[in-house]
Amino acid sequence: MAQVQRMSRLMIKTLRDDPADAETLNHKLLVRAGYVRRNAAGIWSWLPIGKQVLENVARIVREEMDAIGAQEVLLPALLPREPYEVTGRWEEYGDLLFRLRDRKGGDYLLGPTHEEVFTQIVKDQCTSYKDLPVMIYQVQTKYRDEARPRAGVLRGREFLMKDSYSFDTSDEGLAESYALHRAAYQRIFDRLGFEYSIVSAVSGAMGGSQSEEFLAPAAAGEDTFVRCPSCGYAANTEAVTFKAPTVAAADHPAIEELDTPDTPTIETLAAHLGVPASATLKNLLVKVDGEIVAVGVPGDREVDLGKLGEHLAPAVVELVTAEDFEGRPDLVRGYVGPQGLDKVRYIADPRVAPGTAWITGANKPGTHAGNVVCGRDFDVDDYLDVVVVEEGDPCPVCGTGLTLARGIEIGHCFQLGRKYADAFQFDVLGENGKPVRVTMGSYGLGVSRAVAALAEQTADEQGLCWPREVAPADVHIVAAGKSLQTELALSVAERLGAAGVRVLVDDRAGVSPGVKFTDAELIGVPTILVAGRRAGEGVVELKDRRSGEREDVTVDEAVSRLTAQLG
Amino acid sequence: MAQVQRMSRLMIKTLRDDPADAETLNHKLLVRAGYVRRNAAGIWSWLPIGKQVLENVARIVREEMDAIGAQEVLLPALLPREPYEVTGRWEEYGDLLFRLRDRKGGDYLLGPTHEEVFTQIVKDQCTSYKDLPVMIYQVQTKYRDEARPRAGVLRGREFLMKDSYSFDTSDEGLAESYALHRAAYQRIFDRLGFEYSIVSAVSGAMGGSQSEEFLAPAAAGEDTFVRCPSCGYAANTEAVTFKAPTVAAADHPAIEELDTPDTPTIETLAAHLGVPASATLKNLLVKVDGEIVAVGVPGDREVDLGKLGEHLAPAVVELVTAEDFEGRPDLVRGYVGPQGLDKVRYIADPRVAPGTAWITGANKPGTHAGNVVCGRDFDVDDYLDVVVVEEGDPCPVCGTGLTLARGIEIGHCFQLGRKYADAFQFDVLGENGKPVRVTMGSYGLGVSRAVAALAEQTADEQGLCWPREVAPADVHIVAAGKSLQTELALSVAERLGAAGVRVLVDDRAGVSPGVKFTDAELIGVPTILVAGRRAGEGVVELKDRRSGEREDVTVDEAVSRLTAQLG
Repeated sequence: MAQVQRMSRLMIKTLRDDPADAETLNHKLLVRAGYVRRNAAGIWSWLPIGKQVLENVARIVREEMDAIGAQEVLLPALLPREPYEVTGRWEEYGDLLFRLRDRKGGDYLLGPTHEEVFTQIVKDQCTSYKDLPVMIYQVQTKYRDEARPRAGVLRGREFLMKDSYSFDTSDEGLAESYALHRAAYQRIFDRLGFEYSIVSAVSGAMGGSQSEEFLAPAAAGEDTFVRCPSCGYAANTEAVTFKAPTVAAADHPAIEELDTPDTPTIETLAAHLGVPASATLKNLLVKVDGEIVAVGVPGDREVDLGKLGEHLAPAVVELVTAEDFEGRPDLVRGYVGPQGLDKVRYIADPRVAPGTAWITGANKPGTHAGNVVCGRDFDVDDYLDVVVVEEGDPCPVCGTGLTLARGIEIGHCFQLGRKYADAFQFDVLGENGKPVRVTMGSYGLGVSRAVAALAEQTADEQGLCWPREVAPADVHIVAAGKSLQTELALSVAERLGAAGVRVLVDDRAGVSPGVKFTDAELIGVPTILVAGRRAGEGVVELKDRRSGEREDVTVDEAVSRLTAQLG
Repeated sequence: MAQVQRMSRLMIKTLRDDPADAETLNHKLLVRAGYVRRNAAGIWSWLPIGKQVLENVARIVREEMDAIGAQEVLLPALLPREPYEVTGRWEEYGDLLFRLRDRKGGDYLLGPTHEEVFTQIVKDQCTSYKDLPVMIYQVQTKYRDEARPRAGVLRGREFLMKDSYSFDTSDEGLAESYALHRAAYQRIFDRLGFEYSIVSAVSGAMGGSQSEEFLAPAAAGEDTFVRCPSCGYAANTEAVTFKAPTVAAADHPAIEELDTPDTPTIETLAAHLGVPASATLKNLLVKVDGEIVAVGVPGDREVDLGKLGEHLAPAVVELVTAEDFEGRPDLVRGYVGPQGLDKVRYIADPRVAPGTAWITGANKPGTHAGNVVCGRDFDVDDYLDVVVVEEGDPCPVCGTGLTLARGIEIGHCFQLGRKYADAFQFDVLGENGKPVRVTMGSYGLGVSRAVAALAEQTADEQGLCWPREVAPADVHIVAAGKSLQTELALSVAERLGAAGVRVLVDDRAGVSPGVKFTDAELIGVPTILVAGRRAGEGVVELKDRRSGEREDVTVDEAVSRLTAQLG
């Protein structure tokens, strides 16, 4: 007997209009359809059908985690400061961390992620190589004091997350645990009905070596990533690397000086000379830990300061200011060229390959230089991929033009390595009797975020449109009429429920058929069954929520078809 | 296919010794058997088998809540200050409340209970009498900054609780919702295998009228309550009421003065006169909102200041100090009697019934009075039941001698009435078109506490001893020997698992049979199956964890018997 929910008894109130404070689709639709309510910025309540959808996602996640042998545990959200002090994250997290004191003045935090505590627990439980590998996970509430918690349920300050952690004694073991998680994530996101890409990511503050993000393309996404339409390559824009072209040897004429008054920008220069911006070399000056460094990229490209920062971390990268030019006659603002910068470190994009010729600054006001050849007239100290990726850039794998997309991060797998084991000195007894430092993986999957991301990705103009495993019911039965229709609707609901089909039946009295139809579209159960005008003949309408296809069938036909399909 | 867990792969480490900081049985055993670990005072992690037990309890609770038509939701734990300001509980909770600020300086709290937020949510969702009654619940993490979180998982600072709330338009409706919850709680605690009593309770800080506690008798219990061995009456000691006896009319001699030097206490007085303490009348002076009041009880009884405070609330009750006697010659310390206290309000226990005669103070130093008759020589302004209940006190229902017991509060049902609806002005449209103020019930059930309470109530000297529905497995199979025993154990585990029996199999290599037996007793799965010396003959031992009964049976017999019983 599956669940039969009667809307006459369900605590649900749908809204005709978008909430005034809603900016994203998931916020608008999840509130309007009665799934969630907002308690404060980034803090949400899950109402009955919302809780069911959340639980459906959590169940799928648990099933696939269990299937790879991960063990479920439950750690607290309220955590003492000490372990986060050991790793430095008590400070590093900055304003993102909710901190509080207990009645005795002890410092606590609300866990934003649990690497520290899992490391402590597993260190306590596992002392020998025989106890490893271990993969453990929890489905637990996390807290992050986001600066702008405005994307609905997508980026909450309190949210439900599945976080798991793997513990191995070798790099090969970690690679295996990572592969198991990666495959489990694919099965989870497939079952959840996501369209998604797995992209290489920069590890950032989590530390560690390999890292991949699972991104669900959606307009509301906060991440930009590239996809290759040909070979399937996908990557976070910050992780895309461009392969330096091989440039055929060529005899370039000698450098010539060009009189270019009032052309301090690439646009003015290209216009003045009548050349494309791509023929020019742009030299951006930045300060790296206070020292001035020049970064050269083709004139038609932008420097990605985030990428540059990741490459040079932990050094701090800043833009130069007018003051930095004082006492530096070698730096002529707007007319810098690498051929005269002996005292300045020169970083260039791989596109500025040896043998390429450029128009660039002549290090004299109002003057540029032509035929400036890399390797002949100037040298590059470091090649770093630092340009902003653009639509059409060549795929680093197959060379096809990449496409840009916005995506929601729905999962993230990290090979943390020994960072946390080092911090907590977590060794186990090795096979040879000597201590072995443990190596870790960390795997996050936003459960409440997945609900919001699915809403974003699957909704249409009528409302939500859930994949079946996630939907609060398999069939939404609408009693469109008076008692005849209501009785029919309830009897069909009972027959389907008895056959194992999950049913939501709209038996509300005093609500017009029109409102019920609109609500059914809004709520987004995949199949809609209408007991309407032909109820007296024993005929109902079956409608597919996504395609909109509809068909009149007899009650028996409807029940047997739905039972065969869903029971 | 039920779950088969292999201990060789399970993250579990049992301990031979009690943890140094453990004071209660549940703390000792749950830690030693590998169910939980402590992260900080009152803050716990649930390890794999602990999480399973916790989930089993939560599942039973959900099933019974769903069965009475309660709808599951999930509210946040991090809550804004405002609603708790409306009801005054932001302040009232005092140090018990975890308070924190977000990055913008906004005040938040970690929810200790959710009346305010549920009232807001339901007010938003339900606007007409047609939308009610509604019962909603959540299984959610709660926070209370306990002053002394020392009872193991029993009284945590972060804990899992089922809290539900009912909303009705009439007192009759509330009574019905309350009755549904009460019956559901009985089914839950029966299924969980609890021995428990339902006791009348004083509502305390929650406000409201009717209130009952579900108490599980256990030595570690923090509540004292009385039970009638004859009629089944049970009550919180503070809620017991004594019926005034009917005293036969009698001609008492006139008051006589007794010379009683140096007898300022009942003990010294009774010894001096050679009478039982029960023949004397003790008069305790207290201040009620600053005014001196005398409280008269039989000399062999103690005044329960908690009870007195509950009766007189919201007035504040304090003990008198030496200074209060200054300028009051009518109050003779140690020799107060009601027959001379014209200016003082006199409250008495019902045992000081009209017609009863007492020895009491004569309002002169060193002097008492005999034959002081209530109603003749003094009047009682108010009768209040304020004595500490004692073993053997008569049952207020049937008069049998009551027994005292210690218990753990595992559930609590409150009829809140309109307190919260008044605070939030929660009216719905009534049937007659006029607004109706909503009336509420609140029902709490500690999920993590239930695990600890069951541990306390069911453990024996060998360790934990779970009721079957709660246990992490139905059968604990011990491979007591080498590869022959391990192979047999694993094959039996597989057969039982395939038949729907949940199995924990101890297949650990390099662990002696003795350690495995000890661990099996400690972990407390209800049935233990040992593949031991007679494994070669296809014979195993079946043992009942609670009774200790053991029997040798063939493998086939064991499998078919356990399958029939548990599959």
